[in-house]
Amino acid sequence: MPYSMRKQIEQVSVQAGEMMREHQASRIQEKEGHANWVTDMDEQIQRFLAQKLAVILPEAELIGEEKENQALGDGWTWIVDPIDGTTNYIHHYRCSAVSIALLKDRKPMIGVIVDPYAGEIYSAERGKGAFLNDTPMHVSAVPVSSALVAFGTAPYNPEYSQMSLALAGRFLAASADIRRSGSAALDLAHLACGRVDYFFEMLLKPWDFAAGALLVEEAGGIFAMPALEEVDYGAMTTVLASNPECYSFAHAELLRIIHSYGMQEKRTWQATDAFL
Amino acid sequence: MPYSMRKQIEQVSVQAGEMMREHQASRIQEKEGHANWVTDMDEQIQRFLAQKLAVILPEAELIGEEKENQALGDGWTWIVDPIDGTTNYIHHYRCSAVSIALLKDRKPMIGVIVDPYAGEIYSAERGKGAFLNDTPMHVSAVPVSSALVAFGTAPYNPEYSQMSLALAGRFLAASADIRRSGSAALDLAHLACGRVDYFFEMLLKPWDFAAGALLVEEAGGIFAMPALEEVDYGAMTTVLASNPECYSFAHAELLRIIHSYGMQEKRTWQATDAFL
Repeated sequence: MPYSMRKQIEQVSVQAGEMMREHQASRIQEKEGHANWVTDMDEQIQRFLAQKLAVILPEAELIGEEKENQALGDGWTWIVDPIDGTTNYIHHYRCSAVSIALLKDRKPMIGVIVDPYAGEIYSAERGKGAFLNDTPMHVSAVPVSSALVAFGTAPYNPEYSQMSLALAGRFLAASADIRRSGSAALDLAHLACGRVDYFFEMLLKPWDFAAGALLVEEAGGIFAMPALEEVDYGAMTTVLASNPECYSFAHAELLRIIHSYGMQEKRTWQATDAFL
Repeated sequence: MPYSMRKQIEQVSVQAGEMMREHQASRIQEKEGHANWVTDMDEQIQRFLAQKLAVILPEAELIGEEKENQALGDGWTWIVDPIDGTTNYIHHYRCSAVSIALLKDRKPMIGVIVDPYAGEIYSAERGKGAFLNDTPMHVSAVPVSSALVAFGTAPYNPEYSQMSLALAGRFLAASADIRRSGSAALDLAHLACGRVDYFFEMLLKPWDFAAGALLVEEAGGIFAMPALEEVDYGAMTTVLASNPECYSFAHAELLRIIHSYGMQEKRTWQATDAFL
């Protein structure tokens, strides 16, 4: 795989990020909360990505939030989220990202996340490190007691929302504070560059975490799916990512809350194809 | 009061924001979580603000996070937060702000909040409107069901933290999602320009809300202190800010959670001088 493929993906992601930001600027007056223009833009950016990425690697499949998807296979596969952080985008809350991963043998080989508001390009290539605007990046070495913890709320599922908030409460008691940005891709990117120290979110889908997972690992962090036997980049499941200092604590607390809610009995807690 | 006073305060705030961002860039390797350089910078920016603001209005008192303060009086008074979002600043999580309010008769007359990372200047002058980078700004008209809700966690007080999370859980169930940024000043600024729709935080201090309160009101929103008889800009208390659509709901839920925790019996729930 040529080094330049990562740079080509970065270029495409930056262009997609510009589309995202410019289209939003033209809709600045529409703040009613439910907005067709967002769905339109999601689909438009995904079409743009499909077209551009097909040029980079014609034989690759594409899995994306805005289409019917096949199950993840062993061949080259793009997993893309044209706008990660859609609720933010609707509300003009400037925290959304383009997320692109390229997988082979069901594992991410390249990951790129672009934050068009901050002008930040996060990227990683398996075995070759992780970068923020071309500078090598690393996870933090902050211990649990002074950690900043990003989390997700599973906003579409009340039961998981409640469990997520209960866990966030435990983490808040043990660490410095919690953060909820509304973009899992950016939470993982921020973990990879050391701005937050551990992160969890329940019910995430492949396009939410595929690129971020590689960023975290190549930046020296740990990416895990505590509810599964092993990490499965085709699953809809709970994700835990952490610097090495906080991982054991965060993992134990996550399992404890799952058990206290009896969620280990539930099939939905396991990998599911429901998102396909 | 000349119109240009708001612009003068904006200039000083932008300079302070540049100090904040540049000093952080020079300390990018220090991520251990407890950092003296942050305290140093807090004090250095506050000294800078005291010096510059004294030129703009020599007779004004100054109340700030980084000094011993007198109680708020009726005369001209600056209330400043050199770095709102200190935990973020320590962690290089790019969400901190400079907040400056000018009060007379215990009410904010001018408010300025600068986000040096986004390059955004929020300002308001009593009776003259609110502005984001010189463009008039307004709160949203989003109803509760699709609202984005910013909240604070009272991270220094476990009892209030628990109550805050319980309330966040109720708001999450009723609205689109919750956000936790770690900067009350920016939460209020984001409410004023319609990016979030309602906001609460417990145990806030005057420098956290004095400027933001005026932004919200001049942008057409509601700023309230539900635990007090009336708004007191010298109090340490719970703050609720909202667009007009969400206010009644948010206010009722806030009072309900206070009562369910029995907090109305507590002196600390009322205004206190403990922050002085």
